[in-house]
Amino acid sequence: MIRTIWWEDDGVHLLDQRALPGEEIYLVCRDYREVIEAISSLAVRGAPALGVAVALGIALGLKQAAGASGEEFQGRFEGLCREFARVRPTARNPFWAIERIRALAAEQAGVSAEEKTAALIRGAVALAEEDAANNRRLGEYGQTLIPPSAAILTYCNAGALATAGYGTALGIVRAAWAAGKGPEVYACETRPVLQGARLTAWELRKEGIPVTLITDNMAGSLLASGRINCVIVGADRIARNGDTANKIGTYTLAVLARENGVPFYVAAPLSTCDGAVGEGREIVIEERSGEEVTTFAGTRIAPAGVSVWNPAFDITPCRYISAIVTERGIIGPPYKEGIERQTNIKDR
Amino acid sequence: MIRTIWWEDDGVHLLDQRALPGEEIYLVCRDYREVIEAISSLAVRGAPALGVAVALGIALGLKQAAGASGEEFQGRFEGLCREFARVRPTARNPFWAIERIRALAAEQAGVSAEEKTAALIRGAVALAEEDAANNRRLGEYGQTLIPPSAAILTYCNAGALATAGYGTALGIVRAAWAAGKGPEVYACETRPVLQGARLTAWELRKEGIPVTLITDNMAGSLLASGRINCVIVGADRIARNGDTANKIGTYTLAVLARENGVPFYVAAPLSTCDGAVGEGREIVIEERSGEEVTTFAGTRIAPAGVSVWNPAFDITPCRYISAIVTERGIIGPPYKEGIERQTNIKDR
Repeated sequence: MIRTIWWEDDGVHLLDQRALPGEEIYLVCRDYREVIEAISSLAVRGAPALGVAVALGIALGLKQAAGASGEEFQGRFEGLCREFARVRPTARNPFWAIERIRALAAEQAGVSAEEKTAALIRGAVALAEEDAANNRRLGEYGQTLIPPSAAILTYCNAGALATAGYGTALGIVRAAWAAGKGPEVYACETRPVLQGARLTAWELRKEGIPVTLITDNMAGSLLASGRINCVIVGADRIARNGDTANKIGTYTLAVLARENGVPFYVAAPLSTCDGAVGEGREIVIEERSGEEVTTFAGTRIAPAGVSVWNPAFDITPCRYISAIVTERGIIGPPYKEGIERQTNIKDR
Repeated sequence: MIRTIWWEDDGVHLLDQRALPGEEIYLVCRDYREVIEAISSLAVRGAPALGVAVALGIALGLKQAAGASGEEFQGRFEGLCREFARVRPTARNPFWAIERIRALAAEQAGVSAEEKTAALIRGAVALAEEDAANNRRLGEYGQTLIPPSAAILTYCNAGALATAGYGTALGIVRAAWAAGKGPEVYACETRPVLQGARLTAWELRKEGIPVTLITDNMAGSLLASGRINCVIVGADRIARNGDTANKIGTYTLAVLARENGVPFYVAAPLSTCDGAVGEGREIVIEERSGEEVTTFAGTRIAPAGVSVWNPAFDITPCRYISAIVTERGIIGPPYKEGIERQTNIKDR
C-alpha cells in the first residue's frame, strides 16, 4: 500500500516524489510553507493529490496560528486560501479543495477559532480519505471496461502517487488486476519530468503488475501495431463539455488512439470537473521553466542559450474521448449531460 | 560549415556526435572496425551519413589490406561488404552505398588490387561529395515550399550532422534562410538519444537560425495551436509506394500534422529510396538496448528490472505525407510514379 500524503499530529507527511524511483524519502512539513514548496517543486503532484495537499496545508497553516482571535483567524484563513490557490494553476482539485474547506468554515460560524481549526483539520483529513475511497469506486466502475489480458497504455502517473491512494487510471488497472483480469501496462516515460518512467513504473513494479516502459514518441507506433486494447489517462481539469486538461502529450495519445480505433478513457474524480469552465480553451495552461527540458537527470542536454517552450499540460477535445470514468460511474458522450448529472447528484 | 565525416590519408575522420552539444571531438578511424564501432555506437548517424560512413569504411578496410593478391582482395572486399551491411538494418543508404561500391568494383575488373583500391577510395570520396551536393539541390527544391517567416517543426536530426554536409530537412531550412525567408525552427528533442536537443539545436544555433526546443510530447499541442506552417523530417528508407521509415515518433508527428491541416514533408536523397521494398511494412525496424531508455548520462531514471520496448524507427504510411523532396525535385502523391520516374532518370 503506497501512502502519498497524510496528516499526523506533527504535520503533513508526504513521499518525496522527486527522489523516486531511486529513493523512498518521506518529508514532514511542520510549516504550511513547506507544503507550498513541496507542491511547487513537484515533491507532491497529480491533481487529486494536490487537492489533498492544499486541504492539509491550509489545516496546517491554521494549526500553526493556534491562539489567534476570531478576526485574526479569518484573516489567516483567507491568506492561506489565496497562497495555496496561486501555486499551480491548471489542476482543478486544489481550487475544489479550497472551496470545500471554505464551505466547512462557513458552517462553523459562531464557534471559537480553536474549535474551527479542529473542525477544518478533521475536514481536510476526511477529504483525503474520501479521495482514496472515491478512487476505489472509480476503479470498480472502470475495470468493467477492461477485457481479460488487456494491454493498457497509460500516461504520466495517475496512480496512488497522484492521489491520496489507489489512483485513477492506475486505480482501474488495480481493480482489473484484483478482478483477475491479468492486465499489462505500457507506460509512457512522460517528458520532461518523467513521471511515467519514475513513478508509474515504480508503482506497478511494486505490486507485480507487468509494465513495459516506452518513450513518449513510441506510443504512435505501439498503437498502430494493434497491441493496445485501450488508453487510460488521468485528468487535471475537465470542462463542462468534457474537454480535458491533462499532462502535456495527452492530446497526442488521444489523436493516435482514435486514428487507430483504440478506446481512449479519462479517469478522474468529480473534484476534477470544473462547472465554471465551458470548454477546454478557457483552461489556463501552466508553463514551467525551460530547464526541465534542457537538463536531463542533472546533465545539460541542449546547447546553451536555446529557446524552450515548456507547457505542462494540454487540452484533449472531448470528441477524442471514448468515456470519462468517475466515482459515480462511466460517462459517455455527449459529456455535458453526464457530467452535470453526476455533479448535481453530488451537490448537497 | 559543419563537417560530419570525410576521408584523409590517415583514415576516416568524423565528428563524434555522442559528445555533442557539450564537446566538439573529432575521431580518426585508422581501422575499418573503428568505423563500424562509430556507426553502432551512434558517433555517426543519420541515413545519408551512414551511407558515406559505410563507403569510406569499406575503402579504409581495403587500404589496410594493401599488398593483397587479386583473390585476397576479392575475399576481403566481400567480407567488408557483409560486415558493414550488418551494423544497422533500417536505413537504406548503407546498402545503397555498398551497391554503389560493388558496381564500381565490377567496373574495375582486370586491374591490380592496388589500382582497384585506389579507384574505390576515389569512388567513396566522390560518393560523400555527391551526398553534400545532392542536399544543396534538395534544399533548393524544398525551400520553394516554405512561405516567408515560416515556423517549421522538425524531428530528430536531418541536418548537416546526418549527412556529408548541409542536411536534408535542415537543408531546406538552410536554403529558405539563405533565400531571405527568415524561417524559425521548432525542434523535438527526440528521445531516447536526443538527436533533436543535442544535434539539431546545436547545428541551428551555430548558424544563428532561431530554434525553440520542445519535448516530443509537446508537438501535438504546438500543431493544434496553429503556430506551425509545416513539418519537415528526414527519412531512413522510403518504400516504392512512399511509405517512409524514419526515427521513432515520425509517424506520430505525421498523424498530428494531418489532424491539424499542417503539411508534412519528407526530405531525403534518392539513395534513401528502396526499389526492392513495395510497402513500409516490409521494412526491418531496428530495436535497440533498453538502457537507452532507462539510463541517461549514467543516471538511472526508471526502476530496476522494468521491461522496455525500444524500436529506433517507425513507419509513416504514405497517405500522411504531403510531398517527398529529393535532389531531383518535389514528388507529390501518388508517390510510386514519382519515385519510379526520379530513380529511373538516375539509372545509368
